[in-house]
Amino acid sequence: MRVDNRKQDELRPITIETNYLKHPEGSVLITVGDTKVICAASIDDRVPPFMRGQGKGWITAEYSMLPRATEQRNIRESSKGKVTGRTMEIQRLIGRALRAVVDLEKVGEKTIWIDCDVIQADGGTRTASITGAFVALVLAFQKLVEQKKLEALPITDFLAATSVGVSAEYGQILDLNYVEDSSAEVDMNVIMTGKGQLVEVQGTGEEATFSRQQLNDMLDLAEKGIQDLVGIQKDALGDIADAIK
Amino acid sequence: MRVDNRKQDELRPITIETNYLKHPEGSVLITVGDTKVICAASIDDRVPPFMRGQGKGWITAEYSMLPRATEQRNIRESSKGKVTGRTMEIQRLIGRALRAVVDLEKVGEKTIWIDCDVIQADGGTRTASITGAFVALVLAFQKLVEQKKLEALPITDFLAATSVGVSAEYGQILDLNYVEDSSAEVDMNVIMTGKGQLVEVQGTGEEATFSRQQLNDMLDLAEKGIQDLVGIQKDALGDIADAIK
Amino acid sequence: MRVDNRKQDELRPITIETNYLKHPEGSVLITVGDTKVICAASIDDRVPPFMRGQGKGWITAEYSMLPRATEQRNIRESSKGKVTGRTMEIQRLIGRALRAVVDLEKVGEKTIWIDCDVIQADGGTRTASITGAFVALVLAFQKLVEQKKLEALPITDFLAATSVGVSAEYGQILDLNYVEDSSAEVDMNVIMTGKGQLVEVQGTGEEATFSRQQLNDMLDLAEKGIQDLVGIQKDALGDIADAIK
Amino acid sequence: MRVDNRKQDELRPITIETNYLKHPEGSVLITVGDTKVICAASIDDRVPPFMRGQGKGWITAEYSMLPRATEQRNIRESSKGKVTGRTMEIQRLIGRALRAVVDLEKVGEKTIWIDCDVIQADGGTRTASITGAFVALVLAFQKLVEQKKLEALPITDFLAATSVGVSAEYGQILDLNYVEDSSAEVDMNVIMTGKGQLVEVQGTGEEATFSRQQLNDMLDLAEKGIQDLVGIQKDALGDIADAIK
Amino acid sequence: MRVDNRKQDELRPITIETNYLKHPEGSVLITVGDTKVICAASIDDRVPPFMRGQGKGWITAEYSMLPRATEQRNIRESSKGKVTGRTMEIQRLIGRALRAVVDLEKVGEKTIWIDCDVIQADGGTRTASITGAFVALVLAFQKLVEQKKLEALPITDFLAATSVGVSAEYGQILDLNYVEDSSAEVDMNVIMTGKGQLVEVQGTGEEATFSRQQLNDMLDLAEKGIQDLVGIQKDALGDIADAIK
Amino acid sequence: MRVDNRKQDELRPITIETNYLKHPEGSVLITVGDTKVICAASIDDRVPPFMRGQGKGWITAEYSMLPRATEQRNIRESSKGKVTGRTMEIQRLIGRALRAVVDLEKVGEKTIWIDCDVIQADGGTRTASITGAFVALVLAFQKLVEQKKLEALPITDFLAATSVGVSAEYGQILDLNYVEDSSAEVDMNVIMTGKGQLVEVQGTGEEATFSRQQLNDMLDLAEKGIQDLVGIQKDALGDIADAIK
Repeated sequence: MRVDNRKQDELRPITIETNYLKHPEGSVLITVGDTKVICAASIDDRVPPFMRGQGKGWITAEYSMLPRATEQRNIRESSKGKVTGRTMEIQRLIGRALRAVVDLEKVGEKTIWIDCDVIQADGGTRTASITGAFVALVLAFQKLVEQKKLEALPITDFLAATSVGVSAEYGQILDLNYVEDSSAEVDMNVIMTGKGQLVEVQGTGEEATFSRQQLNDMLDLAEKGIQDLVGIQKDALGDIADAIK
Repeated sequence: MRVDNRKQDELRPITIETNYLKHPEGSVLITVGDTKVICAASIDDRVPPFMRGQGKGWITAEYSMLPRATEQRNIRESSKGKVTGRTMEIQRLIGRALRAVVDLEKVGEKTIWIDCDVIQADGGTRTASITGAFVALVLAFQKLVEQKKLEALPITDFLAATSVGVSAEYGQILDLNYVEDSSAEVDMNVIMTGKGQLVEVQGTGEEATFSRQQLNDMLDLAEKGIQDLVGIQKDALGDIADAIK
Repeated sequence: MRVDNRKQDELRPITIETNYLKHPEGSVLITVGDTKVICAASIDDRVPPFMRGQGKGWITAEYSMLPRATEQRNIRESSKGKVTGRTMEIQRLIGRALRAVVDLEKVGEKTIWIDCDVIQADGGTRTASITGAFVALVLAFQKLVEQKKLEALPITDFLAATSVGVSAEYGQILDLNYVEDSSAEVDMNVIMTGKGQLVEVQGTGEEATFSRQQLNDMLDLAEKGIQDLVGIQKDALGDIADAIK
Repeated sequence: MRVDNRKQDELRPITIETNYLKHPEGSVLITVGDTKVICAASIDDRVPPFMRGQGKGWITAEYSMLPRATEQRNIRESSKGKVTGRTMEIQRLIGRALRAVVDLEKVGEKTIWIDCDVIQADGGTRTASITGAFVALVLAFQKLVEQKKLEALPITDFLAATSVGVSAEYGQILDLNYVEDSSAEVDMNVIMTGKGQLVEVQGTGEEATFSRQQLNDMLDLAEKGIQDLVGIQKDALGDIADAIK
Repeated sequence: MRVDNRKQDELRPITIETNYLKHPEGSVLITVGDTKVICAASIDDRVPPFMRGQGKGWITAEYSMLPRATEQRNIRESSKGKVTGRTMEIQRLIGRALRAVVDLEKVGEKTIWIDCDVIQADGGTRTASITGAFVALVLAFQKLVEQKKLEALPITDFLAATSVGVSAEYGQILDLNYVEDSSAEVDMNVIMTGKGQLVEVQGTGEEATFSRQQLNDMLDLAEKGIQDLVGIQKDALGDIADAIK
Repeated sequence: MRVDNRKQDELRPITIETNYLKHPEGSVLITVGDTKVICAASIDDRVPPFMRGQGKGWITAEYSMLPRATEQRNIRESSKGKVTGRTMEIQRLIGRALRAVVDLEKVGEKTIWIDCDVIQADGGTRTASITGAFVALVLAFQKLVEQKKLEALPITDFLAATSVGVSAEYGQILDLNYVEDSSAEVDMNVIMTGKGQLVEVQGTGEEATFSRQQLNDMLDLAEKGIQDLVGIQKDALGDIADAIK
């Protein structure tokens, strides 16, 4: 049994509250254990310069933490005057992952801005952001469908993310919280579609290495976790989920 | 009757949810109509360089909005690489106001960081921040009292803030929402103590002016509103409020 | 009697030297005691993006101090790579105040840049900047009138600013110098028109508070000071002053 | 046959010129097809603040491209005033990978700075950087051994990196050049040790997905490529290689 | 005769007003035709990190222009968030030139900050800055002498600067104003000591070249101008000048 | 004899390897003793805003050093977030010098970007950059001639640069290496054309001065060195050199 009494292959309690904010076209508050992220999807009727004239849409993401989302207060990136490498990595990852399940041709020349703001952090903020952002994105597209600006949801599959790792104490574990993440020898983020296709695999040994076998075992765990997460996304979306094949 | 059916001297519905976050020493979610601000107070056992060796504490504040707190998405200040003038004005104001009701000598060489993050904005975010931050600050000090690091709350009075303005349509009004704020001829932020002393008065005519009489009438409205706000603060703090004279 | 032998309601010696610089459309050197500010008004035939196509003008201000304007040398903001919060507050204040007495419709699509550069500082630099900038602005508009680019001065009233405060030693005092400002319990900047209408009131207790009565007494002092300042502005402008009703 | 007449599982021609620069403790010029990277290892007798007093060493990496390393000239990051997200991702990756095969306890309180400067780019610059940087790092440690500042090379294994991908035309391919990389549906960077342990796996579908089977096939290709790369590293290091178990 | 009726070898009218500002240890307002520069020398009892522990002093300079010192308004460097290359060149030049005539050993561990702020520009602002800054520097050292912090002025010679150039219309000319500078084929700044030794020669052909003979003729002109400038410096310094051999 | 056994008027061994890089229109690796610089010339079919519509070309240069080009590792300017004053001075100098021998009218509305990246530094990096950049520039123009985009090379003369100095030990010396440069009393960079016209002379005494006679002797040395450098440039360019009169 893990520190919070979970089994190795058990996710933390997860909730997704849809339409959490008044202004964005789509928004959720996702809670994964003590990790809480507000995900908002905003529609902008322009595309960035490198996309103009192609008739295609674009999805871009930004990620931030409140200064006191963590145990120790962090300096705001706006005060530092620059975004850290960690933040950049995460926002590039979120955008790339979402684009893998969106038919950008069908979106037309629009940018969807995804904002993931971590209100409270306890490990897994980037995977919670992706899982929540997918729902916020669907809600925003649904609004365009209702306004007859899109014929159908330009979504090709569900998308969710989780972390897996190798712990000295518990072996391979699913959905690491902060304490587990800090002590894990190997940490892997996996992003998958509802049909079980991989979108992104990022496995990292910090001052450690891992075998092909361990990689495969971790992927098995992740696959199970992501199926559960997609189920939670479907519940949160209700009828809208039916329009996604 | 105003756009949201309020009387001229009526505040919007207000709630203060204490201990909203897990990590900070003090935190609240304050809701003023559709304006929602997370206020966190963090204790740091150092003071800034200009305060060292004086045996006194310091209180400093930071303020930010989520990009989609507003009707139109705003660019993040961390992406811009700098903090706007408006943000700087607000964070200086919050810090200065709170320091007016804290006995910094009694705090000792500590900095209290106040973080006000606007989750949703509908006018009055700076005054909601101050009203909420006061409660978060008291909760953080209370934790120090409970840990025997302070003998008593180093608070000299309650502190709350609200806005008043002059509207062409409704005359003088209390607690302006975004629509009212955008069309007001005069906008004034008033910060007062529980005993009715002024801490800060900032009245501004944007492309307009106002008379001494109008100033006085606005101050009457603000005084009434602040008394109500202090009542709500007392309810939120419960027993802790009794320790503030 | 105050430290410089002034009465409580007495301004420091004030001079306004018009057309101080060769290049700007309007410029003055204003001296308020030992505070000296060069104010320049530059006309730009464009407006900022958010104003385009409205047929209206815009007035924006920048404020800076020479590094050794003060007792201790300050680091240049250009070396720091960013403008401080104090500077931003002041430049926003100057621009907003001037816009209150200008009929921007009559100006047409032009921006007037106001540059206030403090050569020597001894308290009251922001209020001296406003009082001087008003004269520089009128001179720049007068040049447009002479060039037949404007039919008449698009100015609705005179505008001047001063500070008032509460001192432990002298009570309520007008036009604080640096020493007085540093020790004042309450500091208030007041900007008024020639006809006595308020444009901006910013009263602040730094680690102190003030009563409604004190606020009113300070406003009385400010009103008297501003009438004197408007008289000095009229003398500096000579015949041009007559065109302002 | 691929565009440059390679087989699917064939690396490009690779050379590693050791001691390429005069000043650094260790340096190489690595050439992977038309990709050329100068890798330098510099020894600094301090560690970053977060490592002080632990008696352990640290390895950190920086990565840059000459503006005209690429087909189109890129703006220098020094001119832009900030480092891009891509650069940050790569330099974090290089540092993390090298640390996985270094016994930092044995290094003692020293920082090794790794500088990877891409002189010419034709795909695979980050994996070439890692493969070259490993050799430069060994050379720098060897210098410390020769100076009797270290007893033995604090290296636990060889380390090399390559890319693999899925191409619509050629299926799964090893060591993608720029043209192949631009059109690949899936792109994966793999970092492995000489003994075949994984250090980092980063597989990404840009607007595409991949199956568990494809992942495994790509890993097989990468494993073969990395064994070849380690052979080239051994040749370049000559006798020094023998000291690495 | 030149555009302003000067002969080829004639300086513009020059004045140096000493002790122009209240706060700095030394200050002047230097006027060279329509070019006006405030030069201030501030004494700081620390030296920069690279000088610590050597027992020597340091002199460093900063240079700036008011935005409307010029015909067209310039954007402030503080607003741009960075100092231009031109400004950096000039401030490095001023500091280096002054250090050539100061015995830094005798100064002891102090930094003298030289601030040259151009109030009005009409060509030759960098040479006017140097000529004025020398006087401000002497005044600051004189203050240290009077305070018995220095035994004698640590100055080895007078120092002044001027520009010379080659004009298509007038041939070789001394002390170019803005119009002459803009159209000159060759522009040279010369800094010399009172005894006629060269400190800095910077001759530049912008889209043009010049011969050894032209270089020599320009140096002759500069030498004459600098002798005149040193005379004006002596007059401005009065008795203090006698202490400089 | 000097530290590296050179005579006072002797250049270090110099090589220029043309077409060093694959992508740029023109490129060289220039080696001057242990100083090595990659110079690349890139053609951009736009001109900067201030040049638009004039039908003329522009040449602009950027200069950088690899962090470990020097004995001690330097912090990257991209990490610092700003370019140093020294770098700015050098890149302005390179661009200005090259423009002096190019007929910009004949270039048409194009910008040539010159990138000088110092791979290894041992003194004289700026003069090596100019000497190498001239060759890279000619190669880029030659490519335009071959593509019939230019009728002839728009080059009016050869251009090369070297340093000269005054050393306490060796007197006046040509082409200073790092050790000589660090201890020289006077340091002068001279840029000349193939026909012996001066383009730029920058002589500097750091905490020292020099006489007119010394200036002339240094210019004699420089003239001899530059004739040798032009010979090496001609050899490197081969037949292309014949097209430059």
